[in-house]
Amino acid sequence: MSERKWVYLFNEVDQAEANSGGSWDKVRGLLGGKGANLADMTRIGVPVPPGFTVTTEACNVYSDTGKFPEGLWEQMLEALAVVEKQAGKKFGDRNNPLLLSCRSGAKFSMPGMMDTVLNIGLNDDTAAAMAELTGNKRFVYDSYRRLIHMFGSVVMEIPDEVFEEPLEAYKVNKDYKADTEMTAEDWEEIANQYKAAVKSYIKKDFPQDAYEQVKLATEAVFRSWNGKRAIDYRRAENISDSLGTAVNIQTMVFGNMGNDSGTGVAFTRNPLDGTNHIFGEYLLNAQGEDVVAGIRNAENLDTLKDVMPDIYNQFLDLTKKLEKHYKDMQDVEFTFERGKFWMLQTRNGKRTAKAEVAIAVQMVNEGLIDKKTAVKRVTPKQIDALLHPQFDQKVIAATKPFAQGVNASPGAAVGQIYFDADKVVEMKETYNTDCIMVRQFTKPDDVHGMLSAKGILTSEGGATSHAAVVARQFGVPCVVGASMISIDMEKKTLTVGDLVLNEGDWVSVDGSTGKAYAGKMNVVVPNIDEMEDLHTILTWADEIARMEVWTNADNPRDALRARSFGAKGIGLCRTEHMFFDPERLPIMQRMILAKNIEDRVEALNELLPFQRADFDGLFEAMTDLPVIIRLVDPPLHEFLPSADEIQEQIITKRIDKISDYVNGKLHDKELSELENMKKEVDKLHESNPMMGLRGIRLSIVMPEIVEMQVRAIFEAACDVKLRGFNPKPEIMIPLTGHVNELKKVQPRLVEIAKEVMSEKNVEVDYLFGTMIEIPRAAVTADEIAEVAQFFSFGTNDLTQMAFGYSRDDAERSFLVDYIDKGILPENPFQSIDRKGVGKLMKMAIDDGRAVNPDLAVGICGEHGGDPSSIEWCHIIGNDYVSCSPFRVPVARLAAAHAAIDND
Amino acid sequence: MSERKWVYLFNEVDQAEANSGGSWDKVRGLLGGKGANLADMTRIGVPVPPGFTVTTEACNVYSDTGKFPEGLWEQMLEALAVVEKQAGKKFGDRNNPLLLSCRSGAKFSMPGMMDTVLNIGLNDDTAAAMAELTGNKRFVYDSYRRLIHMFGSVVMEIPDEVFEEPLEAYKVNKDYKADTEMTAEDWEEIANQYKAAVKSYIKKDFPQDAYEQVKLATEAVFRSWNGKRAIDYRRAENISDSLGTAVNIQTMVFGNMGNDSGTGVAFTRNPLDGTNHIFGEYLLNAQGEDVVAGIRNAENLDTLKDVMPDIYNQFLDLTKKLEKHYKDMQDVEFTFERGKFWMLQTRNGKRTAKAEVAIAVQMVNEGLIDKKTAVKRVTPKQIDALLHPQFDQKVIAATKPFAQGVNASPGAAVGQIYFDADKVVEMKETYNTDCIMVRQFTKPDDVHGMLSAKGILTSEGGATSHAAVVARQFGVPCVVGASMISIDMEKKTLTVGDLVLNEGDWVSVDGSTGKAYAGKMNVVVPNIDEMEDLHTILTWADEIARMEVWTNADNPRDALRARSFGAKGIGLCRTEHMFFDPERLPIMQRMILAKNIEDRVEALNELLPFQRADFDGLFEAMTDLPVIIRLVDPPLHEFLPSADEIQEQIITKRIDKISDYVNGKLHDKELSELENMKKEVDKLHESNPMMGLRGIRLSIVMPEIVEMQVRAIFEAACDVKLRGFNPKPEIMIPLTGHVNELKKVQPRLVEIAKEVMSEKNVEVDYLFGTMIEIPRAAVTADEIAEVAQFFSFGTNDLTQMAFGYSRDDAERSFLVDYIDKGILPENPFQSIDRKGVGKLMKMAIDDGRAVNPDLAVGICGEHGGDPSSIEWCHIIGNDYVSCSPFRVPVARLAAAHAAIDND
Repeated sequence: MSERKWVYLFNEVDQAEANSGGSWDKVRGLLGGKGANLADMTRIGVPVPPGFTVTTEACNVYSDTGKFPEGLWEQMLEALAVVEKQAGKKFGDRNNPLLLSCRSGAKFSMPGMMDTVLNIGLNDDTAAAMAELTGNKRFVYDSYRRLIHMFGSVVMEIPDEVFEEPLEAYKVNKDYKADTEMTAEDWEEIANQYKAAVKSYIKKDFPQDAYEQVKLATEAVFRSWNGKRAIDYRRAENISDSLGTAVNIQTMVFGNMGNDSGTGVAFTRNPLDGTNHIFGEYLLNAQGEDVVAGIRNAENLDTLKDVMPDIYNQFLDLTKKLEKHYKDMQDVEFTFERGKFWMLQTRNGKRTAKAEVAIAVQMVNEGLIDKKTAVKRVTPKQIDALLHPQFDQKVIAATKPFAQGVNASPGAAVGQIYFDADKVVEMKETYNTDCIMVRQFTKPDDVHGMLSAKGILTSEGGATSHAAVVARQFGVPCVVGASMISIDMEKKTLTVGDLVLNEGDWVSVDGSTGKAYAGKMNVVVPNIDEMEDLHTILTWADEIARMEVWTNADNPRDALRARSFGAKGIGLCRTEHMFFDPERLPIMQRMILAKNIEDRVEALNELLPFQRADFDGLFEAMTDLPVIIRLVDPPLHEFLPSADEIQEQIITKRIDKISDYVNGKLHDKELSELENMKKEVDKLHESNPMMGLRGIRLSIVMPEIVEMQVRAIFEAACDVKLRGFNPKPEIMIPLTGHVNELKKVQPRLVEIAKEVMSEKNVEVDYLFGTMIEIPRAAVTADEIAEVAQFFSFGTNDLTQMAFGYSRDDAERSFLVDYIDKGILPENPFQSIDRKGVGKLMKMAIDDGRAVNPDLAVGICGEHGGDPSSIEWCHIIGNDYVSCSPFRVPVARLAAAHAAIDND
Repeated sequence: MSERKWVYLFNEVDQAEANSGGSWDKVRGLLGGKGANLADMTRIGVPVPPGFTVTTEACNVYSDTGKFPEGLWEQMLEALAVVEKQAGKKFGDRNNPLLLSCRSGAKFSMPGMMDTVLNIGLNDDTAAAMAELTGNKRFVYDSYRRLIHMFGSVVMEIPDEVFEEPLEAYKVNKDYKADTEMTAEDWEEIANQYKAAVKSYIKKDFPQDAYEQVKLATEAVFRSWNGKRAIDYRRAENISDSLGTAVNIQTMVFGNMGNDSGTGVAFTRNPLDGTNHIFGEYLLNAQGEDVVAGIRNAENLDTLKDVMPDIYNQFLDLTKKLEKHYKDMQDVEFTFERGKFWMLQTRNGKRTAKAEVAIAVQMVNEGLIDKKTAVKRVTPKQIDALLHPQFDQKVIAATKPFAQGVNASPGAAVGQIYFDADKVVEMKETYNTDCIMVRQFTKPDDVHGMLSAKGILTSEGGATSHAAVVARQFGVPCVVGASMISIDMEKKTLTVGDLVLNEGDWVSVDGSTGKAYAGKMNVVVPNIDEMEDLHTILTWADEIARMEVWTNADNPRDALRARSFGAKGIGLCRTEHMFFDPERLPIMQRMILAKNIEDRVEALNELLPFQRADFDGLFEAMTDLPVIIRLVDPPLHEFLPSADEIQEQIITKRIDKISDYVNGKLHDKELSELENMKKEVDKLHESNPMMGLRGIRLSIVMPEIVEMQVRAIFEAACDVKLRGFNPKPEIMIPLTGHVNELKKVQPRLVEIAKEVMSEKNVEVDYLFGTMIEIPRAAVTADEIAEVAQFFSFGTNDLTQMAFGYSRDDAERSFLVDYIDKGILPENPFQSIDRKGVGKLMKMAIDDGRAVNPDLAVGICGEHGGDPSSIEWCHIIGNDYVSCSPFRVPVARLAAAHAAIDND
């Protein structure tokens, strides 16, 4: 036992490493994160105030036995002797006293959870000596009274009030308002009062013996590992109790020893924009806390170059050394004491997204890191933050939001509130008004309004409600489920507490934070074309990624945007959105309500030119790239007014009728028309529409719609090709559950494609494929892959059916509860549930490729833009992911991350 | 080529078998079913009129080349020479002419699809000779004109009118009403006219050469293989075109050669009740068609014993021989010509279900077959037919149904129609009325009415609609989806065309055929206890089966019935049915609408004694056997009135209010109460309730309900045990999709179980398990099996979610279409879809048992009573299937069949 090494000097890190089998992780386990880091800096020649580390093993023995392990104290004394030599000072000596700090330092950072004692080694003698030596008596006695307070509290467990009350009383007596007014003599007096307070409280003197101080402080730090705060923290952070904490005993250095002393903090590069120039502040003749507290105005670090060129140059060299060693921008603290430079701490510096990207690119160019590392260092969140309009952060900080909901679609939007989709469109088109659409929730026939709005705010719904999904799709900032607001659709008001906003009032909605503010706030819109570094990172990401990133886009505007963001194709063009256009919806409804095939086909023939025009623009925008067009998917009743709406009108009419009867009028005809419409809608009613007559089922029961669509697609493709572009249509059939469905539908559609191409005398390349969104389709993918030429995972529906969760219902009722209670680790509609849904996807790919090795596989659900889901797609072998245009850059990065982490 | 054997004499079957490598299947492929059978009878010494078979291979060559293969004609002539010797007659000879039949005979029976020519060998000479020989000139010329007609039609492709018209004209001329009035001379004249007609139509004589006749007839049969009718039939029956047909050339024998000749048909045992006594009819001096046509009254076969004892005894010996050879009851045709007995045909005899069971048991006892064969011979459909009340078949045949729907739950029911569940209960309880409940469709709160009804008739819904499922569950005969009837709930009438039935009118509903009749029809109710043979078969089935059969039962009555039917446990007790009892529903509703936990618990405490009493009876009835109780499953809104109902009331009130306003009255309070209720119901509304807040999700959000249920279960179990019974409760948690749900719910319930047992100071054995009905549960069964002690497949929901079909919606809209169009081979809600749903089940068992080898696995969905689904459960390793009480005997048989066919 006595041969066990409990203590490592900072310069014994090689030995610690050897004893840990060369594992730096084990070194961190032995010496703690802080100790290991100080030792590491020491090793690479960065001047660190000398000291040593008591190992976590010693702490564990202390925790078990309540005593220092055998040999520890002797090893500490030996180490201390070496430190005295290194520092050129002597512990407890009145001529040239060495002061020490005693800090905890576990393997994983537990900020503020354990104890620290500074200024160990001060006593009545050394304090007097130091006051003389430094000529700064006020600082010394301030330090001394701090030691007594800290030691009393940490080591002797004396309540803070015992120290705070006499100080307060002293200041009142002197009529001081702040500690800064305290003089050297005042602090000396307070130090004396504190010693008396200790004596009176625990019937013992404050220890004047420096060695006793350090021993007791070490024990106190050991004990703090098992303090309540620390234990709670470890529970929460899932840190093992058995790790123990190390104790770092380190020479104290002082930047306030005169004008050849100073202290500062710095980032090795600019953390705001990434510029490769040191960025920091310093103060001469000051302590670190003075810089942080802002009591004196700190100087820009650049001025140090003239003031103390040697120190400045030494510092610059050291930061280069640190960056080279840690291969990242560093956030450092330093002190120089009487012309001697000390580095107190270094860590990877926090920075803005912009700086992250810039620094990553610089470091590749400097040869410090490789492209993979650079790409890996940038997070999807950072890209997201870079690309969305943002409010001015200073204004935000000073303003109270009137509502907080779910941050459904990121970005900042300012506009006037309107409560009705048609009104939004009207205001936009007539007056070019910036509108914020406010609704309890949205439905498909609100989409034209949502498209015209700058932002969306709803009082109901979750992160995958209709509003949220559509908003993300179109990159419209959106906050949903702001349940504290109440909306009166008749009065057209939004009310929260006393605040009443009327139609036309200005609000600012932050889709990144879920907050909404009254009034107009300043917005900053980033421009991706100007972000050269981001472009570089994403280009590298594309080189690294195995999967391509495609986009979900229904119109040329979105397609072009996504293409500029780097999309390599359209993975999902939803054709039904096109039917909700106010010009087309009446024709669509006529088609649905048609009593015979002739009437239906006639209505479809009217829709055909619209659809052809839609596709025409899309193919032109995406020339040379594949465009996957999904045939009509939703149940038909989505295109009709709801039964409740009609019923409400019927009631009104019935009541009118009675009133009018009293007045001698009759309105039977209108009423009977409404009642007929109600009957039709009721006929289409389904108990569970999500599992009802839609997708390919509709195409089997009512094949005329998709026949029209395929004709429109190929007419457009041929026309576009004749104009010299290169369209690459791929037709996607939704909701297949049984291969026979495809066998029934696909051949007829292929026939139409060939008919059109022969009519136009043009050949275009095309594919026919299907969505895999029904569990049975995933399970029988081997059969389906014999017919379909590609698969695209519809993970929204696949998640709904694999879990048996109706998305909107679930998020409104139990799903939030499930995530809160930890029953689900996360919302499966946001990140793919790998064990369930993900396993089905893997089966589908494996079984599908077993019969059709060339099977192309993508994903076009909401998950296509989610980094964790993108990683899963990489793991199981997807060829591409498809997401909304604004998510394309994020997805490109995530695809690269997936490749780096898994290949 | 010339060495190929194209022709096999009936007595060359050994050679055919040798050439087919010993495979009887290949012999049937070569000689066709009929040829193989004739040869087989010949081999075992049954006297068959001699003949030979031209192989299917010869047919195939003919189909390819349009010519007889080389050597065929020579082989036919050789065979014919042997047949002449065997028959002691000579083909084409005027002294003792041999007549032949020429019949098709493919591997698989294609009745009526191909051609036959009889009486080959007749010509002007042989006809005259035979007339003299037989002394029956009328018969000979009738036969001759038939030959000319048949030959003309089949071989020469002359339209039938060419023959029918002159015969018609002749009869008109003679003023004959029927062919029976035709004399010998008349037929001779017709034969002459036919020959002239042939000559005039195809400019060729009817061939007088017997050899030419047989050659042309053979070619015609070959050609008929590729006739349109035959091809269509093969398409429909999925028979390969490449098989070809054989041609059987056989000596014709005649039962009308005098009083030492005769003909008859017989079953070797009684096909109605299975009695082991020959059962048949015969006619002396007659042809087979006379027996069938019933022109003369046929004699009971028993009388032949006295009339021709030799023939009779020879026949009895032969039938024994046939039964011994074919190991089954035979249906035979025979002829004796001048004292010589010939067997013309034998095949397994069709019989009633009762006879099937009786004969199977007899044959085991006689050592003819083993138990497996006996069990396998009885079909599930037969058992089903045996056990359900039935209408008198003769009455049925003479009565026209007023409606035809889906045969949802078998059995016959007669009663007075009522349109309302409460009214049905009232009529039953007050007057013991037999009621037929008539509804558009049913809902859970109709269940008490359905239970009290003798039968159910609905105008909407399919085979797995609520009405159908519940009716099968309770063994109530039920016809659903009889869409031709219209129901007026206010007038209380059922209307079909001109027929109007009022409340209280009598109808008869046949759930086995889907037909409904006006008035009272006679019903026969079978009693299983009296069916000794059935009992024997099912006992053998249990010995053979690997799986047990359990039952779905919610009350002691059903439990006892199922036990008497051989159920070995309860696989599903649905606890929610118990809440729909009119006494309990108001408490249940109070519980749901409770504003706080205290009120909720108070209502639950009122429900507790009811539930305990339910379980008490069940445990007593099922003592020593496991009882799986499923905790509450449906969404809460099922226990409340529907939003539409309330809305309708609100409208009425609003209109009342306006009218009353005119009259100076006000009813605001009632209206506001209704509006409040509407608000609560709306709050519980879900877009897709099937995928909503129910099952274990409800138990997480509102744990008080299941806590009450588990308390009630264990209080009952302890009480029952104290009374000396042996309860074996197993608690089943529905709708698990993620193991964490179980981890949250199950431990708390186990705790309650232990609490109760400790309060009562009784120990009962118990298990906790879960349903596997969510696809994700099947996919993650390895995780779930670590918590659940048993699995029970809920294949209704699993099918819904794996396919993404909402059951009621789908059967109402596209599912029927899907099955009609062959997109789905069968309704997946009736038989498990093996490739999709079945694969998920297999995964669940394999993965579940990998972590928990003792995991018990059952099924409790509707599929548990379906033979094909039962077989799948056997294949994947289920321990038991559970079905409605009336399906238990069927399931026992099906479980045995599964074992026989798959082990």
